[in-house]
Amino acid sequence: MEEIAVTSSSHTYKIVIGENIRFQLKSFLPKTYSSILIISDESVAPLYINDIRSNFTEEQVFQTVLPSGEQTKSMDTFYNVHTDAINAGLDRNSLIIALGGGVVGDLAGFVAATFMRGIDYIQIPTTILAHDSSVGGKVAINHKLGKNLIGSFYPPRAVIYDVETLQTLSAREIRSGYAELVKEALIADQEFFNLLLKTDIQQVTAEELQSHLSLGIKIKANIVQEDEMESGVRMYLNLGHTLGHALEAELGYGTLTHGEAVAIGLLFTLHVSENMFSKQIASHSLIQWLKENNYPFKLQQLDEHALLLKMKSDKKTVNSKIKMVLLEDIGSPVVKELTDQQILDFLHSFNRKLVTE
Amino acid sequence: MEEIAVTSSSHTYKIVIGENIRFQLKSFLPKTYSSILIISDESVAPLYINDIRSNFTEEQVFQTVLPSGEQTKSMDTFYNVHTDAINAGLDRNSLIIALGGGVVGDLAGFVAATFMRGIDYIQIPTTILAHDSSVGGKVAINHKLGKNLIGSFYPPRAVIYDVETLQTLSAREIRSGYAELVKEALIADQEFFNLLLKTDIQQVTAEELQSHLSLGIKIKANIVQEDEMESGVRMYLNLGHTLGHALEAELGYGTLTHGEAVAIGLLFTLHVSENMFSKQIASHSLIQWLKENNYPFKLQQLDEHALLLKMKSDKKTVNSKIKMVLLEDIGSPVVKELTDQQILDFLHSFNRKLVTE
Ligand SMILES: NC(=O)c1ccc[n+]([C@@H]2O[C@H](COP(=O)([O-])OP(=O)(O)OC[C@H]3O[C@@H](n4cnc5c(N)ncnc54)[C@H](O)[C@@H]3O)[C@@H](O)[C@H]2O)c1
Ligand SMILES: NC(=O)c1ccc[n+]([C@@H]2O[C@H](COP(=O)([O-])OP(=O)(O)OC[C@H]3O[C@@H](n4cnc5c(N)ncnc54)[C@H](O)[C@@H]3O)[C@@H](O)[C@H]2O)c1
Ligand SMILES: [Zn+2]
Ligand SMILES: [Zn+2]
Repeated sequence: MEEIAVTSSSHTYKIVIGENIRFQLKSFLPKTYSSILIISDESVAPLYINDIRSNFTEEQVFQTVLPSGEQTKSMDTFYNVHTDAINAGLDRNSLIIALGGGVVGDLAGFVAATFMRGIDYIQIPTTILAHDSSVGGKVAINHKLGKNLIGSFYPPRAVIYDVETLQTLSAREIRSGYAELVKEALIADQEFFNLLLKTDIQQVTAEELQSHLSLGIKIKANIVQEDEMESGVRMYLNLGHTLGHALEAELGYGTLTHGEAVAIGLLFTLHVSENMFSKQIASHSLIQWLKENNYPFKLQQLDEHALLLKMKSDKKTVNSKIKMVLLEDIGSPVVKELTDQQILDFLHSFNRKLVTE
Repeated sequence: MEEIAVTSSSHTYKIVIGENIRFQLKSFLPKTYSSILIISDESVAPLYINDIRSNFTEEQVFQTVLPSGEQTKSMDTFYNVHTDAINAGLDRNSLIIALGGGVVGDLAGFVAATFMRGIDYIQIPTTILAHDSSVGGKVAINHKLGKNLIGSFYPPRAVIYDVETLQTLSAREIRSGYAELVKEALIADQEFFNLLLKTDIQQVTAEELQSHLSLGIKIKANIVQEDEMESGVRMYLNLGHTLGHALEAELGYGTLTHGEAVAIGLLFTLHVSENMFSKQIASHSLIQWLKENNYPFKLQQLDEHALLLKMKSDKKTVNSKIKMVLLEDIGSPVVKELTDQQILDFLHSFNRKLVTE
């Protein structure tokens, strides 16, 4: 078992990583609560919700089980979970527990942030990707015009990461989560990156997985501690996400998982960086690794102009440049502005490069 | 012109009170913004929105005008204003301006708290009541099961209170706002209370009004600075609100204004306090003043058991006691727990007392 402390502007919380720790929740809670609402989804609840309930007396605990998938991060679900919380009689001394992946974590965290102007919540992440989403306090739901547009910065009181729950993840969700670990390694840790490139992600042992998660979380935790509200270095965590988000939006959410889209985005980042800084960084070895681990990464069918538009969609004016996180080297991220034409040219050469792989 | 500084956990902001200051907005803003969305309602916008717009260049400013009234603090309106903000191209460096009473302030503040995880906003209160709602950072919308259940603590960057805008208020809204001033006086300032009791609220001069607002705001500002998240003394600001909220809910929102309901609640608080502490405080003089100023305060038609239920509706278990803010004297609030039977008895004797007035 391992503990990592994160200090936010309002309080310090612990991230605990270990096996079977979902049965020892009480020892990680900062205080006792008047009642508890567990929020989970239809895939995770049948597997683990009773384990979580077993930590508390029955009268104290309520649960809300939501459909699995990104569409659950909607305004309607948000309102309905508030209704459930009111009907369960939650008050300002109640606790919300987010049991699931990033979807459940983002939604439940935003409910906690806004129920009676904010109550405590903890994250019990059950996907690899959620090592990222459960740390740092970003919570949100989607607007029909864009992802994560309605939300808050609202850190949890604890993150209890029971790696045993990750055993039931599909191969695809393992891939999705590992892409964010690769991202963190690229931002901050050459050695970690080398270690990941030696990993067959479908064959990792529990110890290896725990150690990868811990390395990734430490990188993320350091960055969010330094810049909680994303006015500076936290932007580095968007490495690979400019194209990643555009791909998700352009293909329709669910076609690629978030991590699969980010993996392609990371490759693109390396492609642009290597060209801009006239040096090899890690394109070639990353492509090989993505292939070995069955990541989808061809995008010849995609229209470059359409992607460009999506990459700019969170920008105000049509003529604004795109800010991208690039790498001067592994561990040395920088933010650069690129013109539309540069982006189009890079998308074009990137596409050609992937086709020949 | 007068300035009061309020320190919150995230930043310090100024409350500026004066005449015609709505034309000098730029001098009160902490920085320049990429764009501005003014949120107002259908009664206030025709009167003042162009004055506000005149502070900025046209390309920079967008506006959303909502129906007047409590029903605007809904989830649907909240979502639609987010849509407007996205369509206007607001980004993280944009500003929201709440131009209106407490309804617009609460809604616009909550939109600002949640748009792209929080952007700056300022309050331009245009009701007397909003001297209370615009200070302290409580923002919220209503759930169909209760008022203000979905919200945040999210302080504004400035409160610009142009008392000239109060000249267009109806007699009823003046009454509503003065009730909260009486509340603040009762909580903290005997002299201010005496001053108010000498005031005919439909005849106040601009100077008197400004001075009353400033005294009230200072009391509120002191309390919220000491206890931003309402874990202690901020509860005192609920003086008169236990019965006040119950009356609003029982009669249907809009039958009484918030302040009219609070005025009756304040009288009830004095009635209970005088009985519990066996002394005269100010019941008699407050009744006289409310009469002179045409406050509605008979409630003989109301069922005491129904009121009791509403007074308990934000509590978890049916058997829990009711916590009420009482006065040991003017300026000496205390929180006391009362049993159901005590409340019923006090409601009964209160009703009889009002009938004989
Ligand atoms: N808040 C942040 O900082 C942040 C960071 C990154 C991503 N995100 C958000 O996270 C979301 C994606 O998270 P995700 O990839 O975890 O998606 P997810 O929550 O949808 O989980 C993926 C799938 O795995 C299933 N699942 C979860 N745990 C399982 C388990 N232990 N066994 C079997 N199945 C399981 C889920 O039911 C779901 O079908 C996106 O909405 C994204 O915006 C947020
Ligand atoms: N956030 C807080 O701390 C807090 C505190 C107290 C009350 N509130 C909230 O405030 C709301 C009540 O505020 P309110 O009483 O200002 O109500 P309001 O905003 O509905 O305004 C009352 C009426 O006056 C009109 N109006 C406003 N300014 C005017 C002007 N200058 N001239 C002419 N007409 C004008 C409005 O259009 C409306 O019809 C409630 O929703 C309550 O929950 C919040
Ligand atoms: Zn991501
Ligand atoms: Zn009030």
